[in-house]
Amino acid sequence: MAKRLGSQTIILDKQPVILSGAGIVGKKEGDGPLSRYFDDVVDDEYAGEKTFEAAESRILRDTFIKALEKSGKSSTDINIILSGDLLNQCTAASYAFRDVDTPYLGLFGACSTMSESLAIASMLIDGGSVDYAVCAASSHFCSAERQFRYPLEFGSQRTPTSQWTVTGAGAVILGKEGQGPKITCITPGKIIDEGIKDSNNMGAAMSPAAYDTIRSHLIDTGRSVDDFDMILTGDLGSFGSTMLRDLLNRSNIDLKNKHKDCGMIIFDLEKQGVGCGGSGCGCSAVVLSTYILNLFMQGAIKRLLFIATGALLSPTRIQQGETIPGIAHAVLIEA
Amino acid sequence: MAKRLGSQTIILDKQPVILSGAGIVGKKEGDGPLSRYFDDVVDDEYAGEKTFEAAESRILRDTFIKALEKSGKSSTDINIILSGDLLNQCTAASYAFRDVDTPYLGLFGACSTMSESLAIASMLIDGGSVDYAVCAASSHFCSAERQFRYPLEFGSQRTPTSQWTVTGAGAVILGKEGQGPKITCITPGKIIDEGIKDSNNMGAAMSPAAYDTIRSHLIDTGRSVDDFDMILTGDLGSFGSTMLRDLLNRSNIDLKNKHKDCGMIIFDLEKQGVGCGGSGCGCSAVVLSTYILNLFMQGAIKRLLFIATGALLSPTRIQQGETIPGIAHAVLIEA
Repeated sequence: MAKRLGSQTIILDKQPVILSGAGIVGKKEGDGPLSRYFDDVVDDEYAGEKTFEAAESRILRDTFIKALEKSGKSSTDINIILSGDLLNQCTAASYAFRDVDTPYLGLFGACSTMSESLAIASMLIDGGSVDYAVCAASSHFCSAERQFRYPLEFGSQRTPTSQWTVTGAGAVILGKEGQGPKITCITPGKIIDEGIKDSNNMGAAMSPAAYDTIRSHLIDTGRSVDDFDMILTGDLGSFGSTMLRDLLNRSNIDLKNKHKDCGMIIFDLEKQGVGCGGSGCGCSAVVLSTYILNLFMQGAIKRLLFIATGALLSPTRIQQGETIPGIAHAVLIEA
Repeated sequence: MAKRLGSQTIILDKQPVILSGAGIVGKKEGDGPLSRYFDDVVDDEYAGEKTFEAAESRILRDTFIKALEKSGKSSTDINIILSGDLLNQCTAASYAFRDVDTPYLGLFGACSTMSESLAIASMLIDGGSVDYAVCAASSHFCSAERQFRYPLEFGSQRTPTSQWTVTGAGAVILGKEGQGPKITCITPGKIIDEGIKDSNNMGAAMSPAAYDTIRSHLIDTGRSVDDFDMILTGDLGSFGSTMLRDLLNRSNIDLKNKHKDCGMIIFDLEKQGVGCGGSGCGCSAVVLSTYILNLFMQGAIKRLLFIATGALLSPTRIQQGETIPGIAHAVLIEA
């Protein structure tokens, strides 16, 4: 049985294992610093499909198949798929998994989806409801631009705080037993809205949520920043990461050299023209499922707090003058 | 510990309790046959807000507060909120719960959201990760029309198989202990796509998923239709309900007089001009949280299989000529 700790943290008993992970990305991500960790790089932005949306589904599905292959499990071993994406009505995930003969739970956490899926799947495995689960998330630069901003053909100029939606998908196979790093503790996040209205500054909208969840996790568990090898946020980018440090400093929490942000390590911010860094559900999903799992396999890290962050906006609500709520869920991964 | 049964069913051990439920609806629903069961009827389609989307969030939030009041619990007792809706990027739920100081898990299951939230929350409580949870879902006729079909001002004609999106929200407080009907068994559903392309015929798109989940539940548990007082689908409407019966008949499963559909009982199909019946996440959520819980309180039913059904489409994918995947999750509720 899991145990609740403090106001919002859960200590898992059976400690589900990450059996494998896979990540497939687009060309720009393949040209970035993490290139050698990805399972495949898709040069064609349509991925052989007719639309960007279908391409995103295809990449997500192929990533799931790759992760399954690497886990040594068959699709009949998997009890449940937990997935989601940024598109309207989460269609990238729905269409990716419609031909898979496995029960499916659709999630919406915007760019926090990967940690939301890991959190829920871990709790389901811990409680005995599920033996093996797939956790996956995706995004696509072209489908996201069309959905949230302008048609690509319009060629609109980007603001300095904007981020670049990652084309890619990450998937992890989580199981009740096996070899791999374990998920030991969960801190699900609250929706935090500090009044940011600029939909080109997602980092600012999400960093208060990351702050709230990290702070709650430390308070609930009695741990300090020194207890982690890495504190990995999803896609705050450079602006949001600076905000997160500032907010934590005000609570006397110094991230020191422990903080990394998936949005800042997937691209070369100096050379690749991506504004403040990468974003999108696929960003943290693919970094965790490839580069980070590799660090665990190499023994380079042993305890990582993974906090994917999401901006829960829609173009409709922004056009109505609304502010942008953020959310962040923390998952503790240990060797 | 929960136990897995057959290919996709989970038998819960601790059997979470439905402590209370609440439902708030719009005027048309308030004029329907279930009128006296609702906690409130909002005559103003803006619910005092400036936009339909904000109105939906308001109704959802007020429903949550009402359910909480009726449960005798305080908001600090609640460990997690599980909610979702039909709008782009699920903003009705995100904005409804942004001021609530409780961790939040966003779901997307289209109109299957209420059973998805009950399924996940039950498993989390069963496993000890959560003591008390809120399960809630909403929809709004005006926000859904704008999102999925035409501007209301356009006054487009409706096809015979179309359904009427319910304005309303339902919320349930689920707990590890207390008085009320219990959730004893879960059958999460697969995504099923039988090639339906008509986005004005959601019943046809969803009924194969309802068929698949009901059939799996019966096979996994060894139960027959006679073992239930009611088999309650979400919003198949009259067309989808007929299809469901036909599909089950081909597998030699006769629903007899046990089947009800929330979309068919929330409105008077003869008099209210709602096509094949009600639809939307709010439809099954509000019927379950009010009328059905009342039947349990009266002792009129003792074992109900609740199967909310969702059509996982988006206008974008339909415009691209895609078919409509469906999903249905089953939750067994027992007195």
